[in-house]
Amino acid sequence: MAASITLYTAKICPYAHRVELALEEAKATYTKYPIDLQNKPSWYAPKVNPASKVPAIAYGGPPSPPEDPSPESEKIAESLVLIEFVNDLFPQAHLLPADPVLRAKARFFIEFSTNKLIAPYSAFQRTGASADDFLAGVVAVQELLPADGFAVGPYSLADVAVTPFIARAFVGLRNEIGAYDEGEGKKVLEALAAPRYARFHKYWADLQARPNFKATFDEPYVTEAFKKRFGGLRAQK
Amino acid sequence: MAASITLYTAKICPYAHRVELALEEAKATYTKYPIDLQNKPSWYAPKVNPASKVPAIAYGGPPSPPEDPSPESEKIAESLVLIEFVNDLFPQAHLLPADPVLRAKARFFIEFSTNKLIAPYSAFQRTGASADDFLAGVVAVQELLPADGFAVGPYSLADVAVTPFIARAFVGLRNEIGAYDEGEGKKVLEALAAPRYARFHKYWADLQARPNFKATFDEPYVTEAFKKRFGGLRAQK
Ligand SMILES: [Ca+2]
Repeated sequence: MAASITLYTAKICPYAHRVELALEEAKATYTKYPIDLQNKPSWYAPKVNPASKVPAIAYGGPPSPPEDPSPESEKIAESLVLIEFVNDLFPQAHLLPADPVLRAKARFFIEFSTNKLIAPYSAFQRTGASADDFLAGVVAVQELLPADGFAVGPYSLADVAVTPFIARAFVGLRNEIGAYDEGEGKKVLEALAAPRYARFHKYWADLQARPNFKATFDEPYVTEAFKKRFGGLRAQK
Repeated sequence: MAASITLYTAKICPYAHRVELALEEAKATYTKYPIDLQNKPSWYAPKVNPASKVPAIAYGGPPSPPEDPSPESEKIAESLVLIEFVNDLFPQAHLLPADPVLRAKARFFIEFSTNKLIAPYSAFQRTGASADDFLAGVVAVQELLPADGFAVGPYSLADVAVTPFIARAFVGLRNEIGAYDEGEGKKVLEALAAPRYARFHKYWADLQARPNFKATFDEPYVTEAFKKRFGGLRAQK
């Protein structure tokens, strides 16, 4: 029998979403255990993740309830560590290509999109910083994309890593959730409609069409959770 | 014939040092090309790394001089991407263990030591922030170390990633190079001499004894380069 996998996750969290996408893509059998990030259970830090964050995985050990995982199971945290772990556990899913150069390009894409796309979007949402850096990041990420297909051609961990953040950026923009002035979200969406961003939209459409995305992204839930969590940012500014 | 590897590097740079350690450990055949970070050649950004940083690797393609690498070679950047690339190119070197759990622990160690050890030391050196977080990070990293051996037992990318930063921290402390008050470096070294840090010192001794370290760390050079580069931080504060 394969070792058990319990994923501690939260629908709102893009980092946890990465691991769900990887597990779904690998057709893994696993138990999903939701953690309420605003009200974490007291056992979570001591028994699962001392950093008290999601995602985390309890792997292997004797059968035990998620609320009381066996000390014999391995507890692993950090989203990028975990998606590599899923790739290592399920090599037949080819979450990374076999070619070392393409593997390096996939890992570079993660680093690059984190710095150029995710970080500037986050600054825009959290602080109301200009969206220009985010839009420039979209162009920069587009330049890495091949003419067709995913980040490095075949679907890979590169796509797994960026998908949750693009999904949540669109939720934020469509609902004007952030520290920026009301109406700025709509303006960014209008800017993104220009033909120069067409490759990004095709990429995003391809990511959304993937079964692992449909199985893991609860847009109505994330929208409401974002409104509760970040809806006050504008007033606080 | 194996594809050629040209590493663009700089002795002062801990990120570039990671890749040298990985290549040496893998007994790779490669060309080391030094980049003067204070005076980068004009061809470097357009022909090798648009981000204009080291490390970068030009991989494969027809024979060409490092100053004019073939457009057909693959250009790869980012230290953690590159050490994984070296592992993928040289699987027989076992730079990551075969066991997925140990691989995850190695990658977690990199993330953890970056946040708990490298970042607080950097804050201490750059800004004169208290060294307490760094000392707490040493304890935290010690707690991840097994009773014997390296970060996850056998030598791995985890050790490759942290070594250059520990080496440069000791250079800085011994020579009082940083924004902190003169004498603070010595105090940190005295604090680190306490028995509670013994496991860390054993780890550091093991890292220094490794042939890949001896082959790649030029302490007199790094000391002089650090004095030039960071020697003015205290006066600027
Ligand atoms: Ca990182």
